[in-house]
Amino acid sequence: MEMKLPGQEGFEASSAPRNIPSGELDSNPGPGTSPSPDGPSDTESKELGVPKDPLLFIQLNELLGWPQALEWRETGRWVLFEEKLEVAAGRWSAPHVPTLALPSLQKLRSLLAEGLVLLDCPAQSLLELVEQVTRVESLSPELRGQLQALLLQRPQHYNQTTGTRHCWGSTHPRKASDNEEAPLREQYQNPLRQKLPPGAEAGTVLAGELGFLAQPLGAFVRLRDPVVLGSLTEVSLPSRFFCLLLGPPMLGKGYHEMGRAAAVLLSDPQFQWSVRRASNLHDLLAALDAFLEEVTVLPPGRWDPTARIPPPKCLPSQHKRLPSQQREIRGPSGPRLTSAEDRHHHGPHAPSPELQRTGRLFGGLIQDVRRKAPWYPSDFLDALHLQCFSAVLYIYLATVTNAITFGGLLGDATDGAQGVLESFLGTAVAGAAFCLMAGQPLTILSSTGPVLVFERLLFSFSRDYSLDYLPFRLWVGIWVATFCLVLVATEASVLVRYFTRFTEEGFCALISLIFIYDAVGKMLNLTHTYPIQKPGSSAYGCLCQYPGPGGNDSQWIRTRPKDRDDIVSMVRKGLSDFSSVLAILLGCGLDAFLGLATPKLMVPREFKPTLPGRGWLVSPFGTNPWWWSVAAALPALLLSILIFMDQQITAVILNRVEYRLQKGAGFHLDLFCVAVLMLLTSVLGLPWYVSATVISLAHMDSLRRESRACAPGELPNFLGIREQRLTGLVVFILTGASIFLAPVLKFIPMPVLYGIFLYMGVAALSSIQFTKRVKLLLMPAKHQPDLLLLRHVPLTRVHLFTAIQLVCLGLLWIIKSTPAAIIFPLMLLGLVGVRKALERVFSPQELLWLDELMPEEERSIPEKGLEPEHSFSGSDSEDSELMYQPKAPEINISVN
Amino acid sequence: MEMKLPGQEGFEASSAPRNIPSGELDSNPGPGTSPSPDGPSDTESKELGVPKDPLLFIQLNELLGWPQALEWRETGRWVLFEEKLEVAAGRWSAPHVPTLALPSLQKLRSLLAEGLVLLDCPAQSLLELVEQVTRVESLSPELRGQLQALLLQRPQHYNQTTGTRHCWGSTHPRKASDNEEAPLREQYQNPLRQKLPPGAEAGTVLAGELGFLAQPLGAFVRLRDPVVLGSLTEVSLPSRFFCLLLGPPMLGKGYHEMGRAAAVLLSDPQFQWSVRRASNLHDLLAALDAFLEEVTVLPPGRWDPTARIPPPKCLPSQHKRLPSQQREIRGPSGPRLTSAEDRHHHGPHAPSPELQRTGRLFGGLIQDVRRKAPWYPSDFLDALHLQCFSAVLYIYLATVTNAITFGGLLGDATDGAQGVLESFLGTAVAGAAFCLMAGQPLTILSSTGPVLVFERLLFSFSRDYSLDYLPFRLWVGIWVATFCLVLVATEASVLVRYFTRFTEEGFCALISLIFIYDAVGKMLNLTHTYPIQKPGSSAYGCLCQYPGPGGNDSQWIRTRPKDRDDIVSMVRKGLSDFSSVLAILLGCGLDAFLGLATPKLMVPREFKPTLPGRGWLVSPFGTNPWWWSVAAALPALLLSILIFMDQQITAVILNRVEYRLQKGAGFHLDLFCVAVLMLLTSVLGLPWYVSATVISLAHMDSLRRESRACAPGELPNFLGIREQRLTGLVVFILTGASIFLAPVLKFIPMPVLYGIFLYMGVAALSSIQFTKRVKLLLMPAKHQPDLLLLRHVPLTRVHLFTAIQLVCLGLLWIIKSTPAAIIFPLMLLGLVGVRKALERVFSPQELLWLDELMPEEERSIPEKGLEPEHSFSGSDSEDSELMYQPKAPEINISVN
Repeated sequence: MEMKLPGQEGFEASSAPRNIPSGELDSNPGPGTSPSPDGPSDTESKELGVPKDPLLFIQLNELLGWPQALEWRETGRWVLFEEKLEVAAGRWSAPHVPTLALPSLQKLRSLLAEGLVLLDCPAQSLLELVEQVTRVESLSPELRGQLQALLLQRPQHYNQTTGTRHCWGSTHPRKASDNEEAPLREQYQNPLRQKLPPGAEAGTVLAGELGFLAQPLGAFVRLRDPVVLGSLTEVSLPSRFFCLLLGPPMLGKGYHEMGRAAAVLLSDPQFQWSVRRASNLHDLLAALDAFLEEVTVLPPGRWDPTARIPPPKCLPSQHKRLPSQQREIRGPSGPRLTSAEDRHHHGPHAPSPELQRTGRLFGGLIQDVRRKAPWYPSDFLDALHLQCFSAVLYIYLATVTNAITFGGLLGDATDGAQGVLESFLGTAVAGAAFCLMAGQPLTILSSTGPVLVFERLLFSFSRDYSLDYLPFRLWVGIWVATFCLVLVATEASVLVRYFTRFTEEGFCALISLIFIYDAVGKMLNLTHTYPIQKPGSSAYGCLCQYPGPGGNDSQWIRTRPKDRDDIVSMVRKGLSDFSSVLAILLGCGLDAFLGLATPKLMVPREFKPTLPGRGWLVSPFGTNPWWWSVAAALPALLLSILIFMDQQITAVILNRVEYRLQKGAGFHLDLFCVAVLMLLTSVLGLPWYVSATVISLAHMDSLRRESRACAPGELPNFLGIREQRLTGLVVFILTGASIFLAPVLKFIPMPVLYGIFLYMGVAALSSIQFTKRVKLLLMPAKHQPDLLLLRHVPLTRVHLFTAIQLVCLGLLWIIKSTPAAIIFPLMLLGLVGVRKALERVFSPQELLWLDELMPEEERSIPEKGLEPEHSFSGSDSEDSELMYQPKAPEINISVN
Repeated sequence: MEMKLPGQEGFEASSAPRNIPSGELDSNPGPGTSPSPDGPSDTESKELGVPKDPLLFIQLNELLGWPQALEWRETGRWVLFEEKLEVAAGRWSAPHVPTLALPSLQKLRSLLAEGLVLLDCPAQSLLELVEQVTRVESLSPELRGQLQALLLQRPQHYNQTTGTRHCWGSTHPRKASDNEEAPLREQYQNPLRQKLPPGAEAGTVLAGELGFLAQPLGAFVRLRDPVVLGSLTEVSLPSRFFCLLLGPPMLGKGYHEMGRAAAVLLSDPQFQWSVRRASNLHDLLAALDAFLEEVTVLPPGRWDPTARIPPPKCLPSQHKRLPSQQREIRGPSGPRLTSAEDRHHHGPHAPSPELQRTGRLFGGLIQDVRRKAPWYPSDFLDALHLQCFSAVLYIYLATVTNAITFGGLLGDATDGAQGVLESFLGTAVAGAAFCLMAGQPLTILSSTGPVLVFERLLFSFSRDYSLDYLPFRLWVGIWVATFCLVLVATEASVLVRYFTRFTEEGFCALISLIFIYDAVGKMLNLTHTYPIQKPGSSAYGCLCQYPGPGGNDSQWIRTRPKDRDDIVSMVRKGLSDFSSVLAILLGCGLDAFLGLATPKLMVPREFKPTLPGRGWLVSPFGTNPWWWSVAAALPALLLSILIFMDQQITAVILNRVEYRLQKGAGFHLDLFCVAVLMLLTSVLGLPWYVSATVISLAHMDSLRRESRACAPGELPNFLGIREQRLTGLVVFILTGASIFLAPVLKFIPMPVLYGIFLYMGVAALSSIQFTKRVKLLLMPAKHQPDLLLLRHVPLTRVHLFTAIQLVCLGLLWIIKSTPAAIIFPLMLLGLVGVRKALERVFSPQELLWLDELMPEEERSIPEKGLEPEHSFSGSDSEDSELMYQPKAPEINISVN
């Protein structure tokens, strides 16, 4: 380096480490058994029994006001990200990714290299520390005294609690004697204290210009025992590190930038790890050099160095930074750390151990019961947490909304053979039973879209053949239960691995399109029954242009409610979480206010089935000829396929590894429960139920366990889910109790429900990758987003894949529109076959990016052969981990 | 540095430049008269007569396939930003900000330091160059031959034109002999060639592993005369720089990263500037070190080094990077380069020279005429450009839409005293006359919101006193013209500097609220005349819930149409530019399709005034007593204030320095024209006209002159505006011709116009900073955006300022709602007084951030005293230039 900087000589002098074995310098620090520097906030690793380095809070105190009014002032602080004191505005900036100028790091290095380095300093107070630090030959006794007095001067911290510009201590700076070193009340009251985990330590950087010094003075201290150094830091934490950077005035903001560089260094987990274990100056400098080797450099002029970069949504994994010995003892990484690399290793559909075939009849079911039984008591005890209470409220409202919507639409589709009352009753009974028995009790059962579509087809089929619907439906249900039991017995659930994204998205797209088509069709149909008022005509009725629930209907999209937890009083969160309820209420209110003549939800006046004149038990034959009970096996076969696909796709999503479920899944047990409930609901003439993806995910999300103490700007760490049966059970008991709400429900206009239906269709369609790829078809290459798959698959191949999907969808739609519509579940299954055939058209690498691999393909690819371009420029390693979108949310709102 | 890297020794050896005066090293290269390294694409500086370094296209060719199938392959290219070849996907990545690893820069430095550096190499062909480069002692003759053959091998470039994965030359790699060095057809056909400006040069970096080399081989060549080196680069450009980085295999992607580092270095303007003038190795290394001193460093683990950063909307100014001598000969920077620093120097409202008071009666007007007269012939000749044709089309549609909307609303507000026909006629006459006479002929005249509001008040006033409206209005117009002439005579326009953002936003907010209130009120009123159809009632009529033109009505928001210029066939642009026309058509279509009974636009069947029974000339008294012609002076005074404020605020915005107008402004002349036209339109009973901010800005925007040749990822450079009178003139002639459209206009329902009106109000309100600050009032501090003003002004002070504005607005609204409503222009002027009084409450620093400074305040602040926090941590210099939003767009859509 030929930069001429102050202190350059020292830098040169120390740049050749002569007395240290060279191997020690260029390798990463110490091997083996020491704990890993894997981010400061992994409280999870405590649970795993791995000792962790404490979290470090770093504060920069600057010496300002030379020469008249010298004072120390805190100007920045770091845990993971940087917060800067906006002096004029009197507040802390938002946390942001720190950026440094390279010369400041180099100046820091040279200052430390020729400065004082005290590792394991035994000082027990600020006074002792200051005495140790100022014991430098170059200082005359007089200067030393002045410097000591200055270092003992109480620094000014911005007082966050009062929120005013007034800084405590600013009015009477004074020397701190030993007994004045007790931390101040303000240090305890600092709200940061509650955020930092117990055991956190502090590091302080003191930097500034000091005119009476003839040459720069650098000192780096690691205290043997962390000790609270009076009012040095804004929070009363025991200090571990102390860094002093003083010197004669220099051009620019040299000491400020050097101080920031020291603080950023200390906030780096890898540097922390090394410097906690450093035994001499050379270890310290080696750690600094290791840091320099890993920094990212942005060229000048192409990037504004003063732009504040907001903290990334997910931090890059520290995994890659560690030597291999350290990696092994590392705890599992959270979902936020899921990297493209991980995806390549096991894929999002990696088979759980629960999906291993036993080969015995009902073997999977028995294993499921065995696995879940020991957890049964804890499934109730684990629910004793306040969080479960709010989860119940949230999920209850979602469930009731769902029951109303699907009940209303089902009643509409079946001329009242099912209705809202049945929907409430069925949801309560089936849901509660499932929560008590199921393998995955976090699942929320619901009438889902595909089942609704099928029931509509079944109803029109039975009408075409003049059948008595409910008895016919009973037999379909009996057969479905039987087929499902056969599937359980033969452990068919393991086949779920053949449902790749291609199948999921085809499934989702078709159902979404049916939703949209139906909602629009229903609305247009209404204009016949309730015609639009033309001028001059005297017929009654009016056009109700209900705008639909709108784009803020975020309950159906999986939002991250935790991000907003700290917003005052739950008001905002409440509004957004229950926006679909609000949309319904608004629609009803507008309807009532304008007195519009709209069709309303059909609700019986008393607690009796919606269809007049039937009891709660469905008669086994009704007016149907007996052989229809056998013929019902054919539609039942189709429905079984549908139920199996719908249930298992949801179950796989819910049991993904990234949710870190401790109590295991129960795919076979779940399907068994669905089969039993199928029988029960058919006998009672209630709707059919399977697992609902969105509500179940919302349920799990509301039961997330997260680390509370976290650094400013960092997102909370995900620890797991409160796995228990009680919240679901209470939700469904409440839903059952809500049957008495039924009389109120008759004020809900059907167009409002169609609006929600339409919205669900649009939202589901816009959430899948398929839609993104269809948009790519229409987009000039220059304007296409920087999608990961576009980096790895030629555009023409992407388009070909999309086109094939479009053709499949077109075929499905045509079949759906013919009299053979009822066989569409079989066609959905056909997608798996098409996907299999695609292996002949696309290479495994392309399918990996466009879809995911089927079990055979995974085996057929050699471990290292997945990325052929590795051999050229290794582009995979240049893919941003941030860009990797875990697939789970994509299917989230698909087929609720 | 203690990093152990290959080639470290060389690095150490050259790090102490012994034989060079130290002064030459740490200062920036060469002083004085040489041209500046201010970005490669400033074609503007040619116009200013400053010679410029040519633009440099840099290409990285990597040697891949060792040891079996050695081949050169282009893997990256740079002009300003980096484009990477996505090998697997077979396409160029989107341009992005390059990021480097620090070690690769250091390895590059050490390789160059001990390698071959040829400056002003006289080679005239690739063969000669290769011979020069391989003349290295360490190579045996045999190896030299192998290496030469390899370097002459034709590299593979990704063929962009065919868009396929096939790379030309890949099938038959061969040695290039002298006569084979002619560039290939593909090199000429490369679309990049059209983008790069004439005179552009190429730099090539060749990098890769070469097993038979015993030690790394680095070479850097600057050719004396740039020469096309056969098929070395993908475009046939003369090469100036050639960099060779070869060596034995090393860990990781060492040569790839080193090659990227070399390419990024070469793409830096400052480095280019230095290396073009370097005379020896040390100059080269000094340039590299100067680059290193300026890089931004992101710490590892807090930033994903593989994330691709999209090119920033505006590049940081190179200004700060230059030594002062170089700065002076620098051309003016475009609006995109406007920095916070510039704002502090002259402020966005900096008085133009046109706003200097002469002190003589009509002195300003005479100066304006003198200034503009010499330009008059060129005002027509400069219009001979194809761009003017599309500008005419675009502005014509905007003008017609405006004429319909305001004409319709004016007719509605004055019971037909004005109407659409008058609006068309008046727009055509006034607009064309203004274009012919005005000081700023780019201005588009229009009936604007404030005038509409005033006319509505004037009409209800005259109705209250049972006056004959048009004669009364004639006298108001006569008086306004008189007052305006007085204002011209006394050069009152220079007072415009007292209209700060506080006034502008108060003005804008009040008018916007009136828009919104009126639109909603009108709609609610319609429900009385055209009641909503209730079930059972048999009255005709229906509720028309027209949803309004929606959020895509972007004509009213100043978009940057140039950003989308390259979208295929104008279709998308057309849709978005004319979205308000589309919204009107859609509304009309829906209305017609449903046959709704809505009130329609009143349009006379023939070419005669809308008010039945009046001629084109307004009778001077009508049925009014004569003394009302004197009393009209009072409302005229108020209207004069309004017209003055409206006209001059717009004029200041249009004449801002950042638009780089060459022909100067004419504030006094403009006002004079408005006064004359006021008289004319009053006599004819046509609407009143002043400059319309939004349409005029759109007009200017459609006439932008921009540099066409630009680097990938860079936005085009703004050169100026085609200042001429012809486009405006043609627009208004076309508008006049459109009077014959009038019979078609009667199909437009009034609610559609109310919808546009509502949208304009909401859009204007949401565009001003005041609204942002009102939102801040309701937002918890943690969630507030990182606004520049929040970094500099305490939140409580921001809230206080907002609260005062809210109180002012409340008072204005109350006055507006009393019978004294007509005096609201006076109250708007009162805002200037309130703003003056705020100087006692807020410090100048705070006002600078919250508002802007009035002329006296600017003088009262010492040059360096604006930023008191400078003395502490100099936070100003840490403000991102990117964050600075020029104020112009904020008022853009305010009072159209």
